[in-house]
Amino acid sequence: MQIAMIQEKICSFEELGPAHLDRGIFFGDGVYEVLRSYQGRIFALEEHLQRLANSLNALNINGVDIDEVRRRIQKAFEQAQIPDAKIYFHITRGSAPRSYNFRQQLEPNFFLTITEISDDSKIKANGIAVSTHPDWRWKRCDIKSLNLLANVLARADAAEKGCDEAILVDEAGLITEGAGSAFFAVFGRKLQTAPLTTNILPSITRKYVIKAGENIRLEIIEKSLTADKASAADELFIAVTTKDIVPVVRFDEKVIGNGKPGKHTKALMEQFRTFTR
Amino acid sequence: MQIAMIQEKICSFEELGPAHLDRGIFFGDGVYEVLRSYQGRIFALEEHLQRLANSLNALNINGVDIDEVRRRIQKAFEQAQIPDAKIYFHITRGSAPRSYNFRQQLEPNFFLTITEISDDSKIKANGIAVSTHPDWRWKRCDIKSLNLLANVLARADAAEKGCDEAILVDEAGLITEGAGSAFFAVFGRKLQTAPLTTNILPSITRKYVIKAGENIRLEIIEKSLTADKASAADELFIAVTTKDIVPVVRFDEKVIGNGKPGKHTKALMEQFRTFTR
Repeated sequence: MQIAMIQEKICSFEELGPAHLDRGIFFGDGVYEVLRSYQGRIFALEEHLQRLANSLNALNINGVDIDEVRRRIQKAFEQAQIPDAKIYFHITRGSAPRSYNFRQQLEPNFFLTITEISDDSKIKANGIAVSTHPDWRWKRCDIKSLNLLANVLARADAAEKGCDEAILVDEAGLITEGAGSAFFAVFGRKLQTAPLTTNILPSITRKYVIKAGENIRLEIIEKSLTADKASAADELFIAVTTKDIVPVVRFDEKVIGNGKPGKHTKALMEQFRTFTR
Repeated sequence: MQIAMIQEKICSFEELGPAHLDRGIFFGDGVYEVLRSYQGRIFALEEHLQRLANSLNALNINGVDIDEVRRRIQKAFEQAQIPDAKIYFHITRGSAPRSYNFRQQLEPNFFLTITEISDDSKIKANGIAVSTHPDWRWKRCDIKSLNLLANVLARADAAEKGCDEAILVDEAGLITEGAGSAFFAVFGRKLQTAPLTTNILPSITRKYVIKAGENIRLEIIEKSLTADKASAADELFIAVTTKDIVPVVRFDEKVIGNGKPGKHTKALMEQFRTFTR
C-alpha cells in the first residue's frame, strides 16, 4: 500500500507521471547544458555534447546515446524556427520511487526548451554590476549537475543588491567563477581567470574567450584572483553561453576603470563575434 | 515563440504541467522532510514542521502555511491506513520557465508520498557496514534542501563496497555525518557526535538519541571525530528517521568491537523505543 499527494489531491502511485518520480527533483540527480544559436546556427554544439558526456560519465548515468541527443536538439531547433535561440536541456537518471540507491538501470529522462534570446545590447554596451557572495556550492562543480541552489541563492543576493551577477568567493578568499558565468579580469595586456579545477565548471565560453584573447595577443593567466585584486583590475567581464562576453563596470562598491566597458573587453567581444558568425 | 521537448515528443509550453517547470528539478530549489509513524502515530511531527519552517525561511520560500502542511500530512496519513509508514514530502519554490531569478512570487509545489516502512529487524539485530567518502556537499547542509547529488554519489560508492551507508569526511579529515543519517561513536560511557554547524543537518533523530543517552546516563560529547578515531570506537551507530538507531559493526575495513551491536547501542535502541510507543 502506498499513496501520493500533489498539492491538495491524493492519488495512487500509478497515477503519477514520470515527472513526479524524477530523480532530478528528488536529488538533482541529472545534468544539463545550455546552448545558443546565432542567426540560425547552434554555436559549439560538439563541445557542449562532449561536456554532457563527461558529466553523465562522472555521475555514472548510463544509457544515454549522445548521437540521439544531438538528433533531438537539431530536430527541436529546426521545428522552433528561432534564429537566435537559447536551448536548454537536462537529462536525469530516470524516474522511480524515491530511494538514494539506484541499483536498477532506469530510463534517463530528457527535457528540452527552446526560447528566444532576450536582447542584451544594452548590458553589453553599458556593462553590469556584480557583487561577491561566498561560494556555497558542492565540491564537484566540474560536473554540470542540477544541484544549483547555491547559485540561485547567490544570484538572489546579487539581485537584492541591484546587481546582475554574483561572483563566488571560496573559503580561501579566491574567486572561483560567477553564479552562472565565468569571470575574467584584465590587467594591462594580461587576461586573467581561475584555472580549471573540480571547483569550476569547464565553461565552453571561457575556452572561446581565451582563444579570442590569444588572437588579439593578450597574455593569458590562469590563476585565481582575490576579490581585492579583482576590484583593482583595469577591466572585468563575465562570459556565459547565452550572452558570450558582458562587461562588468562595478564590482561590489568599486567602479571598474572609468565605469564603462574597457577597450580590451570590447576587442574581445569583437573577436568573439568572428567565432559566431 | 518557444517550444519544449519531453523525451522524443515536441510540445508547446502550454502543454507542460507544473511538474516539468518545477524549480525543484531545474535547481533543486526546494526543501523536504521524512517522517515516520510507529503503530499509527506520526513521530516528532512538530519538530519536523519546525525544521521545515527553518529550511523554507533560509531559502526565502514564502507563502507556505505550516498549519496547512500539517493538515495535508494528517489527511494523507489517515487515508493511507499504514500504521508503520514512511512519509516523504517536498515543497519547492514553484513552477516557472527556467531562470535563476525568482522575483515574482510563485505558488509553492507540494508533493508527498506515504509508503510502508521496510522491515529493518535484521539490520538492527546484526548491524551494518559503512564506508567513508569525501563530503562533497554544499556549505549549507543545515538547510534540508533537494540538492542531494553528493549524498547519492556517496551512497552509490558505499553500495559498490558492499556497505549500507557512506560516512562523510570533510577536507579537514573530520566526519560530518552519514549520507542519509547522523553518526555516533561510543567510547566507554561517552557518546560522541559532531556538533551542529552549517555543515550538518539538525537531525531530529540525533536530538532524540542524545536524549536517550542522557536518560541512560551516558556522557554526551558534541565534538567532531576523525575517521581514525571513529574506527577505534567501542561502538558505532547511525541514526535516521526511518530506522531510528542502526548499529554499525564495520567501518571501512575495521571491525568494530566484536563485530556485533554494542551494549550501549542496544540500551539506546531500547530507550528510543520508549519515545515512539
